[in-house]
Amino acid sequence: MLLQAAGALSSLRILTPLMISNGGLRFASSTAAGVVDKIGFVGLGAMGHRMAKHLLDSGKALVVYDSNRFAIDRLLEDAGAAAASGGSGTVEPARSPADLAETRGVSVVFTMLPGAMAARKAYLGADGLLAASGGVVPRVMVDCTTLDPPTARELEGRVRSTRINTALAGPPVPGLAAESPALLDAPVTGGIVGADKGTLSFLVGGEEAALPFVEPLLRSMGNRVIWCGDAGDAQAARLCNTLVMAATMAATAEAMALARRLGVDPWVITRVLNSGSGRSWVSQEYNPVPGINTDAPASQGYRNGLRSAQVVEHLAMALTAADKCHSPVPVCRNTLKLFNKVVEDGLGDQDFSSVYRYVYGSGSSNNEWRSGEQIFNSTH
Amino acid sequence: MLLQAAGALSSLRILTPLMISNGGLRFASSTAAGVVDKIGFVGLGAMGHRMAKHLLDSGKALVVYDSNRFAIDRLLEDAGAAAASGGSGTVEPARSPADLAETRGVSVVFTMLPGAMAARKAYLGADGLLAASGGVVPRVMVDCTTLDPPTARELEGRVRSTRINTALAGPPVPGLAAESPALLDAPVTGGIVGADKGTLSFLVGGEEAALPFVEPLLRSMGNRVIWCGDAGDAQAARLCNTLVMAATMAATAEAMALARRLGVDPWVITRVLNSGSGRSWVSQEYNPVPGINTDAPASQGYRNGLRSAQVVEHLAMALTAADKCHSPVPVCRNTLKLFNKVVEDGLGDQDFSSVYRYVYGSGSSNNEWRSGEQIFNSTH
Repeated sequence: MLLQAAGALSSLRILTPLMISNGGLRFASSTAAGVVDKIGFVGLGAMGHRMAKHLLDSGKALVVYDSNRFAIDRLLEDAGAAAASGGSGTVEPARSPADLAETRGVSVVFTMLPGAMAARKAYLGADGLLAASGGVVPRVMVDCTTLDPPTARELEGRVRSTRINTALAGPPVPGLAAESPALLDAPVTGGIVGADKGTLSFLVGGEEAALPFVEPLLRSMGNRVIWCGDAGDAQAARLCNTLVMAATMAATAEAMALARRLGVDPWVITRVLNSGSGRSWVSQEYNPVPGINTDAPASQGYRNGLRSAQVVEHLAMALTAADKCHSPVPVCRNTLKLFNKVVEDGLGDQDFSSVYRYVYGSGSSNNEWRSGEQIFNSTH
Repeated sequence: MLLQAAGALSSLRILTPLMISNGGLRFASSTAAGVVDKIGFVGLGAMGHRMAKHLLDSGKALVVYDSNRFAIDRLLEDAGAAAASGGSGTVEPARSPADLAETRGVSVVFTMLPGAMAARKAYLGADGLLAASGGVVPRVMVDCTTLDPPTARELEGRVRSTRINTALAGPPVPGLAAESPALLDAPVTGGIVGADKGTLSFLVGGEEAALPFVEPLLRSMGNRVIWCGDAGDAQAARLCNTLVMAATMAATAEAMALARRLGVDPWVITRVLNSGSGRSWVSQEYNPVPGINTDAPASQGYRNGLRSAQVVEHLAMALTAADKCHSPVPVCRNTLKLFNKVVEDGLGDQDFSSVYRYVYGSGSSNNEWRSGEQIFNSTH
């Protein structure tokens, strides 16, 4: 699925099933045939690099920026390799986000940054996207960074109040303002593995008219697009998902450690959980006990997953949001406390399922882990 | 599937797939044709009555006891109604568990009691099952009560050291001692709805040779039998499942309340959770927000489900087990604290998904619930 030139937007519209919302089927439109425009990408870290590579592999002309020159070089190498094997995708480095946003033909910019501070800098900094002289060329910006909802809403407002450089920009996107760009917040779930395999889920919020314009691109990087509502709503949904995921992981790890101490085989307790009310994505696909799910990080030394340090960061963000609206989250708050201990214990760079190592302690395959008794005796 | 007389056990064996254990298929044997023997049932409360009724409906001759005479009468009425419509099942009241265990032809006894104290009384009391004069008639006893594992193990030992009344008992069960009965612990998941529909899951532990003898009966009351290991292991697995189920419910309710306060539609957050790492039995089938799952108690005024008071009881039992073996369960411990507050707030008799009412407070459809802000402001 190619993103077609904005100029061809009205020529031929193809309706494709986008998603099932409450009881109804909605349709997104895309256009066929036309000039291939350019896609901007800011933030080429572990996630961004993999996502940009999917765009490259699907033949896109990318204009990219990262504060780390090596990250740009890595993608340039990918582009060289792709070209050598007949690929039509290209990579053009920009000197800054502002430079990128001034580049003729850039119709969409994706940003995938490590957090709120980096995202603010990329959008609002002295050489940020919105500092493009003469206005910005891209009509739609898509921020895939995981952010707190207020920051997402603030960025959306700032983008909306920026002017389009109409001399260099493509024609207006139907349904969007002609003089100012739109920002969608589009945080992802699925982690590095999902980014690698192109199986990310994008949670998207903001001006809905912008979605059809970018959805084919999202679908070349992921396999699910869930519309969440207004600006910030996708970030809110993303944080709520993290709360549930982390608490379920913690409880499952605690229960499986307890089962093992009570003499119950991990396979048996997994079967019991999965047979009914204890079932979850954690117990079925991401089991924290090594050997149960061969593809899960637990079976690979707790490597190549979602780092506990990052879970802590996102949980803290979610709890801040909960505090601001006075929403009680006692179990999730305790989950953050547990993952904080996991990180303090030196497991921050391991996959977050290593919380099982923490609660099961020396009973696990690695004898160097302290036993649960030693860790917790003083605190409960 | 009829339970055949023990006397016919060796005549014809039918292999039926029992369960998939780690990578292998195991088979249970049952016998075909023979004299129909009697099934004992002690404890005809909300769960036991429904379970006994399935046995009755499948044509069994029951000998029953409950300390509440009305419970016995209710099942006698069921038997009358069944007979009037051509059913062959019968119900014969016993004066006590001891009386029941002295009854000729009773090959199996099920017990389904409200807790450890009642179970101890039914087995070890002055007129308990094991007090049958001249030894007990049933060769296998099956305790479906939810118990702490040590009590389950103690009962199993006491049953094993009791003598069979060989004058009145059927022939020995292959693989079991000829002179003493066996006790399986077989706690259930699926609740009253599962008991009603015959869709319970039985988690079973103890002497494995006893399983084929009773499995057809379990399958007339439920649709899943999971072998868990030695005596007490099934109870341990049952408690661990409760830990995960309750913590997942709490976290999901907290996250959905937060999402709603952040302005995200409950259907959107449900879709986000179910699309990936936040997915669970709770979010998919037992959603705590009214209207999402029409069959779930949340959509029926939080009635007809698993009462929070009972969840508290089972969580407390699980935490006691965790404390005894020094297994850290910080998130599950906090879950118990939350459900204790739910019960203190007067929601103990509602389904445990009403924890959502508690954390979402007055934002729910019932305006009498206090807001989360008021409830929790003082504690975090």
